[in-house]
Amino acid sequence: MSLILYDLAAADPERRFSPYCWRVRLAIEHKGLQVETIPWRFTDKPLIAFSGQGRVPVLVNSETTVAGSWKIANHLEQEYPERPSLFGGASGEALARFIEGWSDTVLMPAMMPLIITDIFAHLHEKDREYFRSSREQRLGMTLEQVGAHRENRVDDFRRILGPLRATLKTQQFLGGDAPNYGDYIPFGAFMWARSVSPFKMLENDNPVSMWRSRVLERFDVARNAPGYDT
Amino acid sequence: MSLILYDLAAADPERRFSPYCWRVRLAIEHKGLQVETIPWRFTDKPLIAFSGQGRVPVLVNSETTVAGSWKIANHLEQEYPERPSLFGGASGEALARFIEGWSDTVLMPAMMPLIITDIFAHLHEKDREYFRSSREQRLGMTLEQVGAHRENRVDDFRRILGPLRATLKTQQFLGGDAPNYGDYIPFGAFMWARSVSPFKMLENDNPVSMWRSRVLERFDVARNAPGYDT
Repeated sequence: MSLILYDLAAADPERRFSPYCWRVRLAIEHKGLQVETIPWRFTDKPLIAFSGQGRVPVLVNSETTVAGSWKIANHLEQEYPERPSLFGGASGEALARFIEGWSDTVLMPAMMPLIITDIFAHLHEKDREYFRSSREQRLGMTLEQVGAHRENRVDDFRRILGPLRATLKTQQFLGGDAPNYGDYIPFGAFMWARSVSPFKMLENDNPVSMWRSRVLERFDVARNAPGYDT
Repeated sequence: MSLILYDLAAADPERRFSPYCWRVRLAIEHKGLQVETIPWRFTDKPLIAFSGQGRVPVLVNSETTVAGSWKIANHLEQEYPERPSLFGGASGEALARFIEGWSDTVLMPAMMPLIITDIFAHLHEKDREYFRSSREQRLGMTLEQVGAHRENRVDDFRRILGPLRATLKTQQFLGGDAPNYGDYIPFGAFMWARSVSPFKMLENDNPVSMWRSRVLERFDVARNAPGYDT
């Protein structure tokens, strides 16, 4: 029986833009598992009420429901130990958590202003009011103010990629010779951008954009998803 | 036969303050190996000319000479596979490289202004001219300008610790239940500060200072080294 994943969708139900859901999509692919994804919108809270919380990703695996990308990755690793490892052992799992910490507290907050108006433009009509009011309250300004002058802010964004650049100068993937969950965490952020935004945030031929291309090459599900090839 | 490590020393030869050498010291302890450390100063270039370059750490293991903390850690892992692993496998090694990238490009550059005048104050007299002129040229200002108003900059420093805080909220060490090389990399930076600086850069009872204490507790060589207990 295939896995079921509730996956954040834009107005176009095929356009999936959650960075956390993308971590999970690639983890499922990495394990070579089948998944049925259900397009879900921010205001579809009742649809996932069975998970005991209100956010995606939510994975249903037979009788088991798991919410949250890190918990889902761990669930997959434990349930399918005979398939390719997401972490390469307990130490890899622990060290990947630092990459998650960096992605969640540095990478995504820096990327968000560059794409927030593009996110809004792609939302399903029923999500717009919720998205605008919740984000504007959290950020203390309008979406348009947050997203203003992004062409002047892209240098700051590129500067915070220093740790990625340093790592990718000496190895092909964060996971080493092949990608693993350590890659899928920050790569999910780049899929967040790719899915909704035509804004070019990376220069060509630098270690980060080349890594992004290498991951895309390996995952049809990411490369062929609705998005912008910047 | 014991290992020999050329280790950066202050005026007091027992005061060792290189963040890179500290990574290696803890890696050697982790492996349960014996080491003889040779106090080395910046201007002692001829002493390590045999290594083909001019910086420490330099490790001599019988007939083999290895320079640079990452290469030394890899050398120890390969030469002593039967002893406790520094990385927990190939994936852990690759993922630890991201922590190195973050430490080298974010953590240490942010910490440096907080301690640079304290470093200078502890240098051996013969190193002072070299240190001042090389650092002032690189930074484009005097050491005193770089180090000015540090009490106003400590909040910025604490902010960049976000990824460490996020990780250490859910686990004891970056390596998981026990420290490994993923810990020794950023911990080396805190030993750099501890060895020379009375400046209090971490608040008590936060995830990062508690982690620093846990690592110190485990390593006599770090806890008992000349330094400031902030």
